[in-house]
Amino acid sequence: MIRAAVYGYGNLGRAVCQLLGSTPDMRLEAIYTRRAAQLQRSEPQRTAVPFLDPEALDPQKDAFDILINCGGSAKELPRTTAALAGHFCVVDSFDDHPAIPEHFAAVDTAARAGKTLCIVSAGWDPGLFSLARILGAAIVPHARLSTFWGPGVSQGHSDALRHLPGVVDARQYTLPDQTALEQAQQGQPVARETARHRRLCYVAAEPGTDLPSLENAIRTLPHYFAGYETEIRFLSPEQLRAEHGTLPHGGRVVCSTPAGTTPTHLLELQLATASNPMFTAGILIACARAAVRLHRTGECGCRTMADIPPAIYSPEDPASLRAKYL
Amino acid sequence: MIRAAVYGYGNLGRAVCQLLGSTPDMRLEAIYTRRAAQLQRSEPQRTAVPFLDPEALDPQKDAFDILINCGGSAKELPRTTAALAGHFCVVDSFDDHPAIPEHFAAVDTAARAGKTLCIVSAGWDPGLFSLARILGAAIVPHARLSTFWGPGVSQGHSDALRHLPGVVDARQYTLPDQTALEQAQQGQPVARETARHRRLCYVAAEPGTDLPSLENAIRTLPHYFAGYETEIRFLSPEQLRAEHGTLPHGGRVVCSTPAGTTPTHLLELQLATASNPMFTAGILIACARAAVRLHRTGECGCRTMADIPPAIYSPEDPASLRAKYL
Repeated sequence: MIRAAVYGYGNLGRAVCQLLGSTPDMRLEAIYTRRAAQLQRSEPQRTAVPFLDPEALDPQKDAFDILINCGGSAKELPRTTAALAGHFCVVDSFDDHPAIPEHFAAVDTAARAGKTLCIVSAGWDPGLFSLARILGAAIVPHARLSTFWGPGVSQGHSDALRHLPGVVDARQYTLPDQTALEQAQQGQPVARETARHRRLCYVAAEPGTDLPSLENAIRTLPHYFAGYETEIRFLSPEQLRAEHGTLPHGGRVVCSTPAGTTPTHLLELQLATASNPMFTAGILIACARAAVRLHRTGECGCRTMADIPPAIYSPEDPASLRAKYL
Repeated sequence: MIRAAVYGYGNLGRAVCQLLGSTPDMRLEAIYTRRAAQLQRSEPQRTAVPFLDPEALDPQKDAFDILINCGGSAKELPRTTAALAGHFCVVDSFDDHPAIPEHFAAVDTAARAGKTLCIVSAGWDPGLFSLARILGAAIVPHARLSTFWGPGVSQGHSDALRHLPGVVDARQYTLPDQTALEQAQQGQPVARETARHRRLCYVAAEPGTDLPSLENAIRTLPHYFAGYETEIRFLSPEQLRAEHGTLPHGGRVVCSTPAGTTPTHLLELQLATASNPMFTAGILIACARAAVRLHRTGECGCRTMADIPPAIYSPEDPASLRAKYL
């Protein structure tokens, strides 16, 4: 039985806790949250699992085998995973792609010093989609690789909208561009990111807001919307909550031979999930299992999913995997 | 530089030799074929690479790092890979799914005795598709997994047609059933194999053959066509060669949450290739690289792609993979 602790209790942390409840080979031992005292009162059904203060980790050191860091933001994880890695085996879903090498190096140093085994940047992208890109590049000659995200809710873009003056609440859907997708499948040169995606914003504005000005502020927001085909729809906060309360997401990795070369190969990995946190939770739990197994064989340091033999994600033994799935 | 030898020079062996020619970190050292003497005369452009008799392997023992067993048939590979594994690191594409555990065990015994590292059943199915099934089962709760093959040429089914009396030549296309595919994507119970696929046969018959009888013989052929929706089209041998001379194939693995459960997840891996041998060659070469790397770290025994960390398929180093593909 693998003993797990969850660090951070937002959308992702709650999903991991829920899924651990139906994972036969793992047990949830503790939930670390900054709102420990408050949750202890408001979620009495969880009394079997203590809510603990993140600052009080040390006495728990031997109480679990793996800590699943569900800190939601790309800002928080570099600090917390590297700090925790010195004491515990940790899995996280750090997803700021350009910053992954630096994050990996920091966690690797801490994990080697603490003799722990950590897996960072697990999830579907980075994660499963990274595997598709690595395999595609290794197998398909001169592979053209494109990644498309959506249709689905981007929490980063939704947050960016919420920070604009006059916005009460907002939800941003990322949509793959159909023309760019077909070009990728034909092995055309990879379209730039702003041509591969469209952005659809549902915005609840404060009464009296100058909507044309707000629209303009959204469309010109650097890094998030500037350069993209962006559609904006205003609605009431109640409507927003009622109609856009879930977190669907997905995407695909397209790996193709360059147009004009023969023979043509097209390899695609595609995901569509009604709950981004629940799907990501499934991957983090599989990575937690893999991390504990590697650590038990004496390995330490930082890994990504590119370094993990797929068989060890599964609770089934290798012989059974060969018989059932090979 | 990894030194490779190719054992067997049919469609797959020729594809591997061709692709090795443009693989910068590997070099083709020898081709073992039963027609060595004949090919030495007929393919003078290959004089740099000797054609050798498969029975004369022993003196070559230290001349290469990995032997890629391209024996085409599922009947030949169990004998040859297990025999070769005692002396060389070997990669093969053994694809008789129910017999994989037995093949694995025999090769594992030989490889441990000979201190070699072998990867068996590499390719796209088994192989890449096996990874999709293992990952899907490990990540998606109560996953429903379906595999669809085609559209593409099944060499086994084409051979079965060619063995029928009155058949001069034949080509069989396996086609996925669209209704069964949509049901799988919706998480419906997995349809049986005969309902997931249709079979389209192009047959060149000997002049004077009783075509209705031949049609009946095809439709009722056990294991191959009995139970399937089968279409048969007769054409001349010249037309068959002209219009059906290539070996396209593909398929997909569909992994879905069961219909009626929430939240829904749908994960799909899809392949379409204009050349089954060339795509498979790409995977065998990546596996050859991985096998040599594992062997150099001191590992021995048999592996499948489920046991291989994806990063080691790539000629690029791990840090570069993290920066480019994660």
